Amino acid sequence: MPRIEYPSLLQELIRQLRRMPGIGPRSAERIALWLVQSRDARPDEIADALLRSMKGITSCPECGFFSESGLCIICSDPTRDRSTLCIVEQPTDVLPLERTGAFKGLYFTLGGKLSPLDHVGPEDLRIDALIQRVRRDAPQEIVLALGADVEGEATTSYLAEHLVQPGIKLTRIAQGLPAGLSLESADDLTIARALTGRTTVAGN
Amino acid sequence: MPRIEYPSLLQELIRQLRRMPGIGPRSAERIALWLVQSRDARPDEIADALLRSMKGITSCPECGFFSESGLCIICSDPTRDRSTLCIVEQPTDVLPLERTGAFKGLYFTLGGKLSPLDHVGPEDLRIDALIQRVRRDAPQEIVLALGADVEGEATTSYLAEHLVQPGIKLTRIAQGLPAGLSLESADDLTIARALTGRTTVAGN
Repeated sequence: MPRIEYPSLLQELIRQLRRMPGIGPRSAERIALWLVQSRDARPDEIADALLRSMKGITSCPECGFFSESGLCIICSDPTRDRSTLCIVEQPTDVLPLERTGAFKGLYFTLGGKLSPLDHVGPEDLRIDALIQRVRRDAPQEIVLALGADVEGEATTSYLAEHLVQPGIKLTRIAQGLPAGLSLESADDLTIARALTGRTTVAGN
Repeated sequence: MPRIEYPSLLQELIRQLRRMPGIGPRSAERIALWLVQSRDARPDEIADALLRSMKGITSCPECGFFSESGLCIICSDPTRDRSTLCIVEQPTDVLPLERTGAFKGLYFTLGGKLSPLDHVGPEDLRIDALIQRVRRDAPQEIVLALGADVEGEATTSYLAEHLVQPGIKLTRIAQGLPAGLSLESADDLTIARALTGRTTVAGN
C-alpha cells in the first residue's frame, strides 16, 4: 500500500512556506492547512501582496532604504536636515532609529558590515558610493550607527579612517548600559565600554 | 515631520503575513524583509504555490480528505478494505492515522465535532452524508476515531446512537495512557479511562 500523503499541490505549498525564515515543518503544515481550509484565509490576497512587493519594492538610489519609486520617503522629504548623514548597515536599521525621533538627518545604508570570516570586504559594501556622496554633499556631521558586535566595530574603524576629512565632524553612537539593565546583569564588555564612554554630569 | 514607515506595499505584505496562524508582528516583519531583500526568497514561487493550491485543492466527494481532482488517493485506491469505515473530525486527522499503518480501510470526515457552546450542532456536520454512506456501503465495521475532549466524546456518543444498525460493528479508538507517559505524570481522567478500558493480558 503506498504511503498516503497530502496532494502534491499541498505538499508544494508546505515546501514553499518552509523556506520562509522562522517557519519550521509544523508551522508550515499548519499554515498550509489553514490556507486551504479556512474561509478567512484568502490566499490570493497573500499571493497578491507577495507579487506586488516583489515588483514594487525597490531601493532608494540615494540611501538604500526601501522605496516604491525613485527617492524614498526620507530622502524626498525637504524638511530633513541635509547637513547630517547617518551610516547604518541595513535598510532595516533605519526604522529603529526613526522611531526614536532623535535623528532628523539623512541616512546611508552600507548593505552589510565588514566580516572577513564571511568574505565580506570593503568592495562588497557600498563604501565607494558613500565616499562619493560625502564628497558631493559635504555634510557637516557623519554619524556612524553600526552594530556593537565585532564586525560593526571593524566597519566603524574602517569608515572612521576613510571618511575623515577637514570640515566633517565624524561621530559614532554611544555604547554603554542598555535601558533597564542593572550593572549586575550587564556583561563585562558592556560595562567596560560604558565606563570608557562616561560623560560629565557636573563639574569639569 | 511625518512618522517614517515602510513603503505601503511592504506594510501590506506584513499585514497579509500576519493573518497566517502562528505569525506574530515580529515574524511577519522578518519574513517580509527576507522576501524583499533576499536573493533566495523567490516570492513568486510562494505566490504561485498559494494560487495553485487555492485553485487545485478540493475535498474528496466521498470522504472529505484533500484531493486534486475527484476521489482522493485513499478512496481511489482499489486495495483499501472497503468493509471498514473510520470516522474522523477533520481531513487533517487522516494522515496521523495513516502514518501508523494500522488502518487499511476508508475514511469519512465529519468536518468538525458537536459543540453546543460554539453553536455547532448535528446539522453543521456531514452527519446526513455519513448516514447515507453507511446505508449505501453497509460497512462491516465503523471505527469512531474522534478526539478525547468533551466535544469529541459528545460526538462519539451522538454517532454511536445514530449509526447503530444490525450487522454493523461499531467501535471507537481506545483511550488510556499515551505512549511514554508514566502514571505519575498522567492526569486523573486519563488514568480513570485507562482503568475503564483495561484489557485482559492472561487468564479470563
